[in-house]
Amino acid sequence: MIVVMKAGAKPHEVDHVVQEVERLGLKSHIIVGSDRTVIAALGEKRDGAKQALETAAGVEKVMPILAPYKMASTEVKKEPTIVPSLGLKVGGGTIGVIAGPCSVESKEQILQVARIVREAGAAGLRGGAFKPRTSPYSFQGMKEKGLELLALAREETGLAIVTEVMAPEQVAMVAQYADILQVGARNMQNYPLLEAVGVANKPVLLKRGPSATMDEFLLAAEYILKTGNTQVMLCERGIRTFEDHTRFTLPLATVPYLKQTTHLPVVVDPSHGTGKASLVAPMAVAAVAAGADGIIIEVHPDPEHALSDGFQALTPPIFSQMMANCRKVAQALGKTM
Amino acid sequence: MIVVMKAGAKPHEVDHVVQEVERLGLKSHIIVGSDRTVIAALGEKRDGAKQALETAAGVEKVMPILAPYKMASTEVKKEPTIVPSLGLKVGGGTIGVIAGPCSVESKEQILQVARIVREAGAAGLRGGAFKPRTSPYSFQGMKEKGLELLALAREETGLAIVTEVMAPEQVAMVAQYADILQVGARNMQNYPLLEAVGVANKPVLLKRGPSATMDEFLLAAEYILKTGNTQVMLCERGIRTFEDHTRFTLPLATVPYLKQTTHLPVVVDPSHGTGKASLVAPMAVAAVAAGADGIIIEVHPDPEHALSDGFQALTPPIFSQMMANCRKVAQALGKTM
Amino acid sequence: MIVVMKAGAKPHEVDHVVQEVERLGLKSHIIVGSDRTVIAALGEKRDGAKQALETAAGVEKVMPILAPYKMASTEVKKEPTIVPSLGLKVGGGTIGVIAGPCSVESKEQILQVARIVREAGAAGLRGGAFKPRTSPYSFQGMKEKGLELLALAREETGLAIVTEVMAPEQVAMVAQYADILQVGARNMQNYPLLEAVGVANKPVLLKRGPSATMDEFLLAAEYILKTGNTQVMLCERGIRTFEDHTRFTLPLATVPYLKQTTHLPVVVDPSHGTGKASLVAPMAVAAVAAGADGIIIEVHPDPEHALSDGFQALTPPIFSQMMANCRKVAQALGKTM
Amino acid sequence: MIVVMKAGAKPHEVDHVVQEVERLGLKSHIIVGSDRTVIAALGEKRDGAKQALETAAGVEKVMPILAPYKMASTEVKKEPTIVPSLGLKVGGGTIGVIAGPCSVESKEQILQVARIVREAGAAGLRGGAFKPRTSPYSFQGMKEKGLELLALAREETGLAIVTEVMAPEQVAMVAQYADILQVGARNMQNYPLLEAVGVANKPVLLKRGPSATMDEFLLAAEYILKTGNTQVMLCERGIRTFEDHTRFTLPLATVPYLKQTTHLPVVVDPSHGTGKASLVAPMAVAAVAAGADGIIIEVHPDPEHALSDGFQALTPPIFSQMMANCRKVAQALGKTM
Repeated sequence: MIVVMKAGAKPHEVDHVVQEVERLGLKSHIIVGSDRTVIAALGEKRDGAKQALETAAGVEKVMPILAPYKMASTEVKKEPTIVPSLGLKVGGGTIGVIAGPCSVESKEQILQVARIVREAGAAGLRGGAFKPRTSPYSFQGMKEKGLELLALAREETGLAIVTEVMAPEQVAMVAQYADILQVGARNMQNYPLLEAVGVANKPVLLKRGPSATMDEFLLAAEYILKTGNTQVMLCERGIRTFEDHTRFTLPLATVPYLKQTTHLPVVVDPSHGTGKASLVAPMAVAAVAAGADGIIIEVHPDPEHALSDGFQALTPPIFSQMMANCRKVAQALGKTM
Repeated sequence: MIVVMKAGAKPHEVDHVVQEVERLGLKSHIIVGSDRTVIAALGEKRDGAKQALETAAGVEKVMPILAPYKMASTEVKKEPTIVPSLGLKVGGGTIGVIAGPCSVESKEQILQVARIVREAGAAGLRGGAFKPRTSPYSFQGMKEKGLELLALAREETGLAIVTEVMAPEQVAMVAQYADILQVGARNMQNYPLLEAVGVANKPVLLKRGPSATMDEFLLAAEYILKTGNTQVMLCERGIRTFEDHTRFTLPLATVPYLKQTTHLPVVVDPSHGTGKASLVAPMAVAAVAAGADGIIIEVHPDPEHALSDGFQALTPPIFSQMMANCRKVAQALGKTM
Repeated sequence: MIVVMKAGAKPHEVDHVVQEVERLGLKSHIIVGSDRTVIAALGEKRDGAKQALETAAGVEKVMPILAPYKMASTEVKKEPTIVPSLGLKVGGGTIGVIAGPCSVESKEQILQVARIVREAGAAGLRGGAFKPRTSPYSFQGMKEKGLELLALAREETGLAIVTEVMAPEQVAMVAQYADILQVGARNMQNYPLLEAVGVANKPVLLKRGPSATMDEFLLAAEYILKTGNTQVMLCERGIRTFEDHTRFTLPLATVPYLKQTTHLPVVVDPSHGTGKASLVAPMAVAAVAAGADGIIIEVHPDPEHALSDGFQALTPPIFSQMMANCRKVAQALGKTM
Repeated sequence: MIVVMKAGAKPHEVDHVVQEVERLGLKSHIIVGSDRTVIAALGEKRDGAKQALETAAGVEKVMPILAPYKMASTEVKKEPTIVPSLGLKVGGGTIGVIAGPCSVESKEQILQVARIVREAGAAGLRGGAFKPRTSPYSFQGMKEKGLELLALAREETGLAIVTEVMAPEQVAMVAQYADILQVGARNMQNYPLLEAVGVANKPVLLKRGPSATMDEFLLAAEYILKTGNTQVMLCERGIRTFEDHTRFTLPLATVPYLKQTTHLPVVVDPSHGTGKASLVAPMAVAAVAAGADGIIIEVHPDPEHALSDGFQALTPPIFSQMMANCRKVAQALGKTM
């Protein structure tokens, strides 16, 4: 970590910082420039406590050298992590596709969608049983009944079930039915939940919070990794910006950035990332082109009568066409899908 | 709700939308303009389901007329809600001050800070026992031991205790010690938690999520209000923007906006809102000038050795001076503090 | 336009709005709902003056129905606009590639880059002669000397020259040398400049401002179109958000959005859009996959010694490889490149 | 500047960076840590060229130590700059008030507003003659005729005239009539314009661009200061964020931040900063409380019939009341207004 002193910092202020650096168990290294003095503190750890140096008198700023996460980093593990679940494989050159409705609505609906998406080439089935909804007046999901229907769909189709869990005390129940536990964007920094899904020791799909930086996203993954559960997929689903023609802004540059920074596989959700059915297919294709290891797509046989988020669901024919285009691009780039 | 058809929408598409509007139990009203047809759907409810209309063929956009929240609105309750707790009173022309350290660190620390802030005029004591930390390597709080120390500080000083609760299953325990339950910014949309603090029936300090719109913030409050608990304070603590000279951007215009929109009292947190000790005091004074009903401030006797967020904590002398300026401004504007 | 009255608006307030609507030459249509009254004003024009209705007593909000731009809209012209310039063709299923250094630095440099990018398949040459630089202490470009070198490069390679013009009084001079006039992101709302490049009647590459909405972007194009110059390319080059791992956030969903909204061709600039050489190639491929009509890429034979923005320039071998991948994806999707 | 090498950087890569540092005329200082090597480059200048180091092989990141601006900094000039113009004084403990309509519309209108705002205590008169409008279909201002009317209003009231100039070639004409030249938010990085207003040697009100960082804002000021013109006022007028209940987000923390960073006076524009008349007055009072040296406010005798931006203009009675509250707060804090 580099401590930059203010222009005109007093010698005793520099001395004090040096003492603090050493009190923190680091080695200090003083560099006296023409304008100001800089203190390099070597041996940096990741516990954040050193940010205390920012408050010392005469200090202008403190610049960390190391990334704040560790187990998620390619510096610690170079080989890409691959997350398999039943027939679904995400990472390592294979692009996994998870598709399904926003919410489980009925036995007929979920079975119908499951057959359709398997037919089109998906290997994972998404579907919400516990639904976090912005408004308390919106449909909140079928809860355990929905989980049972998802399990039924797996039985019939062999698709791996991906579904959201919203609170630590739900983890055990959801894990009984699901193959992959999803932590939603609103819960990316719900630390008790992250620890609970870690301990459940099932693969986790961790969605990026809409205002999370990459460091915050990787630190959220680190909460799970620290429990010993290494089956974590990172899911880019769009961020909150000033743009108003889409529901969120989908920043695909996070895909190559994450591929260079972490060994964890990266999944893209263009349904939430755009919030408009007409934009989902082109962005799914673009996600594959950008190097994503997986995509997760909302599909509904009758979007107009969906109980939630119908405006961003693809109809089965559009989904099939999207799959064809994704596959062509994957093949053109030497990937398997 | 207003349904705007695309230019060139077919008559059967218009007919279909009208049928859907009526299927939803609303009254339709067709307006044929020179460029396009618009359908007004009267009797709008707040259950969100009607957004389904957006997916009908020929529809360009659907514009809601009503705000999505109800119980939080001044349309439902005109008189300002006042939240009292021991000697603290927030709302109705009285400005309540809550102050204290980021984290409870020791008996000496919390008792010392409690005396200092009471002396300077605060009536509430803040202090984290369960700490949501971005990094799993950072100090996570003293947990129940911290709660006991907060209760001890209340006993000695009479200050109302404000402390964060992070998960539904912690609510009962935290409610045993605290006077006011804080829902942190990261948990603003943690719906199981919102319902749990609602049921606990203690006053709640609800922090705005860093990427939440006003509608989302008020809908989060609505989750608590729906349980029958009306003692909710809204806390503006800064949003995530492109600005990099502060930790967050503190948008004080939310204060007059909320005062005109909701009856709930509005508290401002300039400590998190700026993340820099040197900016906290001017922004606290500005918050009072903008019409805030309360402020919540981080104070630490020795910020340099704080276990968390020392860089944004005020020293006791700076806090006292800030309080003097806030009081002068409050008086100049005819408020009590 | 729809005028929503406040709950409890007085009859005389409604009457007054109706009068104002008619004073503006529009037809009013009153809809009385259970909660509030809504007035539809038909015959909406795009002159903005009617926003005055927002200030009338009793009005809660005014919602426009029409998009604010006209000539840029697919409602006015359905066939895609194609912009040709020498061998470069942008739009209509052909993907045009513009490449070159950030700044023209010397005769050797610009000729060398021109040969390299033509070899790899580009048909346009970019290169700044007048450089808008954030800092007055940075290299400001070779000015007219740089334009002469660009013309020389065209003579030798046949590439179409794309270069930025920064002020109305420079337009005549730049237009003498350039084939396509670039309006930079910082100048997207420099209206005298937009009118001047319109009148110059050369093709224009209009870059999106980093905080411009789609409506603002299309209205900026409309300033040029209004002069009678229809050869406008829209260039997405990234927006300003909270993300700090890239220089800007590149929101590729603007590509399909614009393709559905306007007939103008859409070009993507992943060099500025990411600001990191290692992210440029994957994002160029993703832009093609998302449906872009063109890409513009910074290439430098020796990025480390570039006089500006070397950190985002591709080396020639990386550029060639990027071109190969873009071409494969274009072909897979049935496009020509 | 600090160059952080990647973990595992090769010795020859470190050597190469050291050579480059010295080629740039800086002194290098190598610090070998357990995880990675860091090279401090002393003697940093502000010409940006060194960012080239970011592209060298093996480099992870380059962190500048110095702020990129110089003449605007309190490190160069400690005493606050005071900008006087006729009876208006901005800076040095005196709060200057500039008020008036968005656009000059007629002789009657501008004279009437001028009298009203002088009466209420303003010393500067704002009013647009050249109007940058997002839409080419909106009212574009009275142009030179408007300037003549502003000069007439000065003659009658003694108010200092503040008006916007949009292009370098307009500067001479506008400077003939105006006392203070305003550079609008859309033109904050219009460098030819900044240089032209610098040379005109009249006081300048420089508005912050809606997506400009503090460094970019101060560098824009530096373009003017470099011409020798030191009469620059910085105007915070709101930034573009995801918030949708206001036109822009007004981040008042920039006021104390700038007061600590630069000697230039800081003016706040709550009219554009909120875009809603009902929020302007509380935010003007808050700006004074935050330490602003001036405020600039839109006032119109009949906002409903204003030719531009009526929705954010104060009526004369609301303006008078706002002035009274600002004055009370200024006095409470020991300022003159």
